[in-house]
Amino acid sequence: MQLALTDSQQSLKWCHMNTRRIDAMIDTIKNPSCRACLLEEPIDLYYFTGLSLSAGSLLIAPNASALFVDGRYYAIARKCSPLEVHLKEGENLKNYLKQKKVDFIAVDSSKMSVDAFEQKKKEFLEIRWVTIPYLTRALRSIKDPEELAKLRRSAHLTKQAFIFAKQALKEGVSELEIAWKFESFCREHGASRMAFEPIVAFGDHCAFPHHHSTNRKFRHKEGVLFDVGCVIDSYASDMTRTVIPMDAPEKIQRIGEIVKQAQAAACNLCKPGIKVKELDEAAREVLRKGGLEEYFTHSLGHGIGLETHEFPRLTSKGMEGETVLQEGMVITIEPGLYLPEIGGARHEDTVIVTKDGMENLYQDLR
Amino acid sequence: MQLALTDSQQSLKWCHMNTRRIDAMIDTIKNPSCRACLLEEPIDLYYFTGLSLSAGSLLIAPNASALFVDGRYYAIARKCSPLEVHLKEGENLKNYLKQKKVDFIAVDSSKMSVDAFEQKKKEFLEIRWVTIPYLTRALRSIKDPEELAKLRRSAHLTKQAFIFAKQALKEGVSELEIAWKFESFCREHGASRMAFEPIVAFGDHCAFPHHHSTNRKFRHKEGVLFDVGCVIDSYASDMTRTVIPMDAPEKIQRIGEIVKQAQAAACNLCKPGIKVKELDEAAREVLRKGGLEEYFTHSLGHGIGLETHEFPRLTSKGMEGETVLQEGMVITIEPGLYLPEIGGARHEDTVIVTKDGMENLYQDLR
Repeated sequence: MQLALTDSQQSLKWCHMNTRRIDAMIDTIKNPSCRACLLEEPIDLYYFTGLSLSAGSLLIAPNASALFVDGRYYAIARKCSPLEVHLKEGENLKNYLKQKKVDFIAVDSSKMSVDAFEQKKKEFLEIRWVTIPYLTRALRSIKDPEELAKLRRSAHLTKQAFIFAKQALKEGVSELEIAWKFESFCREHGASRMAFEPIVAFGDHCAFPHHHSTNRKFRHKEGVLFDVGCVIDSYASDMTRTVIPMDAPEKIQRIGEIVKQAQAAACNLCKPGIKVKELDEAAREVLRKGGLEEYFTHSLGHGIGLETHEFPRLTSKGMEGETVLQEGMVITIEPGLYLPEIGGARHEDTVIVTKDGMENLYQDLR
Repeated sequence: MQLALTDSQQSLKWCHMNTRRIDAMIDTIKNPSCRACLLEEPIDLYYFTGLSLSAGSLLIAPNASALFVDGRYYAIARKCSPLEVHLKEGENLKNYLKQKKVDFIAVDSSKMSVDAFEQKKKEFLEIRWVTIPYLTRALRSIKDPEELAKLRRSAHLTKQAFIFAKQALKEGVSELEIAWKFESFCREHGASRMAFEPIVAFGDHCAFPHHHSTNRKFRHKEGVLFDVGCVIDSYASDMTRTVIPMDAPEKIQRIGEIVKQAQAAACNLCKPGIKVKELDEAAREVLRKGGLEEYFTHSLGHGIGLETHEFPRLTSKGMEGETVLQEGMVITIEPGLYLPEIGGARHEDTVIVTKDGMENLYQDLR
């Protein structure tokens, strides 16, 4: 049985890599008078330091980047972080800022709580603070080769576990039992956890986009929707397949087919320079022609990486729709159709945007 | 195999119960001119509505409580919420506030992000907003009988799974394999997830309070630390046992004994009216007499409920130490001793503070 090393252990292997990310972060802060930022979200700390910290402060600034952690993490952070590490207590951070002449700092206002920000302003009277929403998301949306390798591994395991779990479908088995087949296979083959609660839906349950698996039993001729993903080396995977038997009701077979066509239409457009709204429109156009657009009730997909849902969201609406695909982005493409009380279908791949197109991580699983 | 219904399904059974909590919440807002609050944290939404929502706004106000959710949750919320439910779009919330004459609203500044609060102020110009940190934690710290029943079930399963996993200890087995024995037993007997990543530590690994299980193999004569807990019906469990064989090094046997004595000293004090610092002091006094206090490097314990770590934190320090135990609080008591490079021991029970003492959920597991 191959059980996963946890994120912290993995981190020992790769935390030396992240000075590149720190340099890139400094470049993304466009404000010419403010070149520093202070990050405190655990997932951001992990991205830049390779350490699983439940708390800490990471100062990123030209020639003055340093990590401040409490006593629980000091020894491990010193051992494997490429950055200066200091204890986060007393005046340590304040003195460091003074010594390095850092007096203008950005924080992520989409993540920092009102209290935490007020506390900062009170504690560091000499610092000018600037709030920037979503400070790290643009950088994190472009995956480097090491991240892409991990995303491929994560997707590969999800694919294997899906094939394994699907084999257990037989009259009388429950959604929860099939979901557990998927999950336990992943865990026994290297996943540290699920990317989200596995969704297994039978028959009319496929009509709920956010279904939670139940004890409902499988009956022949039903459609079965799997929306599943695991986490391996801290990176998430996400795919959906709707298994529709040949003797399922004609209506269900038809929506299954159209959803696949809509998904392929969006996938085929993927390349750098395309706006996400163009993908959404391409999928919707197929559904519209089939007279079914009204049954597609969510956005087309989302970025994926350390988190299951990352920037960008694939939508036609507002400013988000104008987001332009870039090489290295990794996104899901997942149109679905949901007919209340009857059933539904969704088809989802995760794709890497490459130099001149895309790499579909589930290409061989049609 | 008994697999768990998910939180959302469970919620169908009990969401009618929570109008009592909503009334209690109104009573906890002491500001006489501000009797309303707006909650947006998913775990608070769950506590008051019984619904698993990833987003939503819950207005709690005298005769004007209502839940605002997006299209994904509207049907399910209407079906099973005891509250008025409205779509969270357009001017719906604004119009509702106007109609109900609510113009002064508290938000939880420890949870709401800077951006979300700025957005509120901009969008609702006619509302006076007041920030209160930790708005719901005092109320949530007192568990009602239904919550206590769930916490007992969760603890019982953790105990059973611990006994099962411990039996698999044999020369050559890895920490990760034992951790997986624990986890898979829980999941196959009704747990929806782990309360935290199970900690299984062998020998010198017991010296890390926040150890992550590894592929290290078990050798006879070693101490083994289990810090484990699951979630069942949305409620967490948490217990630690250090299994120390009779032929383990004398030093390890001694710290194992002293930790148990320190833990019992704190446990025995538990009753309404006692301050948490008195528990902490009682445990520390035992360690001090043994000349070992310096090796106890974390706080004595924490509240537990829907979250594994809740209010109160059991510490001697500052205002937190003055927190007075009340009937219905559920806390962990978990002193530990950590000898770097050598080993360690921790002993943790979860106890319910009762009318005149406490109920130890792991009483029969010494």
